[in-house]
Amino acid sequence: MLAATTSASMSQSFERIIHDYSSRVNAQLEAILPAATGPAERLFAAMRYSALNGGKRLRPALCFAAADAVGGSDGNTAKVAAAIEMVHAYSLIHDDLPAMDDDDLRRGMPTCHIQFDEATAILAGDGLQSLAFQQLTELDNLPTETVLSLIAILSRLGGCQGMVAGQAIDLAATGKLVGLEQLKTMHAHKTGALIEASVLMGAIATRAATDGQLAALKTFARSIGLAFQIQDDILDVESSTELLGKQQGSDAANQKSTYTSILGLEQARREADKLYQTSMAALDLFAERADPLRAIADFIVKRNY
Amino acid sequence: MLAATTSASMSQSFERIIHDYSSRVNAQLEAILPAATGPAERLFAAMRYSALNGGKRLRPALCFAAADAVGGSDGNTAKVAAAIEMVHAYSLIHDDLPAMDDDDLRRGMPTCHIQFDEATAILAGDGLQSLAFQQLTELDNLPTETVLSLIAILSRLGGCQGMVAGQAIDLAATGKLVGLEQLKTMHAHKTGALIEASVLMGAIATRAATDGQLAALKTFARSIGLAFQIQDDILDVESSTELLGKQQGSDAANQKSTYTSILGLEQARREADKLYQTSMAALDLFAERADPLRAIADFIVKRNY
Repeated sequence: MLAATTSASMSQSFERIIHDYSSRVNAQLEAILPAATGPAERLFAAMRYSALNGGKRLRPALCFAAADAVGGSDGNTAKVAAAIEMVHAYSLIHDDLPAMDDDDLRRGMPTCHIQFDEATAILAGDGLQSLAFQQLTELDNLPTETVLSLIAILSRLGGCQGMVAGQAIDLAATGKLVGLEQLKTMHAHKTGALIEASVLMGAIATRAATDGQLAALKTFARSIGLAFQIQDDILDVESSTELLGKQQGSDAANQKSTYTSILGLEQARREADKLYQTSMAALDLFAERADPLRAIADFIVKRNY
Repeated sequence: MLAATTSASMSQSFERIIHDYSSRVNAQLEAILPAATGPAERLFAAMRYSALNGGKRLRPALCFAAADAVGGSDGNTAKVAAAIEMVHAYSLIHDDLPAMDDDDLRRGMPTCHIQFDEATAILAGDGLQSLAFQQLTELDNLPTETVLSLIAILSRLGGCQGMVAGQAIDLAATGKLVGLEQLKTMHAHKTGALIEASVLMGAIATRAATDGQLAALKTFARSIGLAFQIQDDILDVESSTELLGKQQGSDAANQKSTYTSILGLEQARREADKLYQTSMAALDLFAERADPLRAIADFIVKRNY
């Protein structure tokens, strides 16, 4: 199994891969985001602030790495990655609002509504969502059926049956005791859905993905998506505000049920590791072409920020 | 010119036409909106509450009437109309939030954040936007290029270069003295863009529209869209809260520049009438097939709610 050798050989190359993927999606975001001028200047400035403020670009990285696993990433991969990152950025802006999680810090910077104002933050989120769909209408030299299938995936997994439902389930659970299954359902929607979209859309946009490969990538995405969230819960308990770039301990402060509050820290770690193993096994059929996906999975379960 | 006979002959048939169009878009909205059950029940209930609470359905009506002017409306027209109405509904939910216009009443009912809560209202808006795009991926028997062009129009005119920019320009103008040109720019984006999208998308989805027809429909839409907003400003001054179903006088209370505050009531009325005449002239080439569009335009400038 490649997984065992991953952490040693990939810690250095991971940085290079992520840097390359980040540069490509950042360049594409720069190209698609409107310049902050004209009568809607403040809206555009807020959209740029939130979409370009240097996050980990994990979803774009998954998108590029999935493309590289099946056919090879290209300019369309950057556009698909930019669309997904804009959906992610909009969800963070809205999630940080006073009526939602009421967070002042994001990625070590003031959140959008603190830097601008609440009304502008609401609109910046709205504008980023529509711009994501617009971006997908601007893919090059792809059959229109393929483009439509990408839009269908993003609207479903990023929408009210996916990510938005996850936020709603999260809201409903705040302040309540929640069981493990309900927590899994919430996370599968809240973070899992968009991670799955990233992997599937990156692969589909290459036009090289087989049904078998897509099935394996879906298994990979669902496992690593849940592992990502468990690690987030773990970090909310044991990392620091400085490393996280956001308020540490905010889950406990907001009385949220988490993997650590339900399972305890040790059992949560074991669960994350089990999911990591499942995700790695799903990549076997890609051999070394999935090394970037392996490196990202490795990062997800071992990161401390 | 047909316009001169419109108001007399169409006041009765207008009610029938609008009722028919409304029934068809309402049935489609019922079909696409998720049932209010399951762990995201509250989100779905809020989406249904806001999308199904009996608005005038003006944008869907324009969509159907434009389709009838060029080729004939069908099941796809209902889906396109539902998508547009969901974008409109999401924009109203977000516009009513305390951080934006802070309105408690909409269509005679408590606004979404009053009926539910702010967080749910934010998410309901987000979910309605993505569901609109999802709806467009579910059109029947249309070439995928046509579907993609519809998605491109909605993402642009309903997004940060269109409607969302209009909201941002509106925010920036609140509490400031604004000139007529700036006001026109704001309205062209805030309401005009989605009205234009309604007319164009309805026509394009029939596959029967010629370039000349689309150009005429664009002129119609831009004129009647601006007339609609001027009439809104007039009604905010001289109608009642009961008739409007929302707080009368809220523009003045929010210190917003309006057509009536800049031009005065009489001049604003003349401006609306001039735009109405332009919109009517643009419909000449459709002869009687544009009667539903004429009836809607007639309603727009003569309504008292």
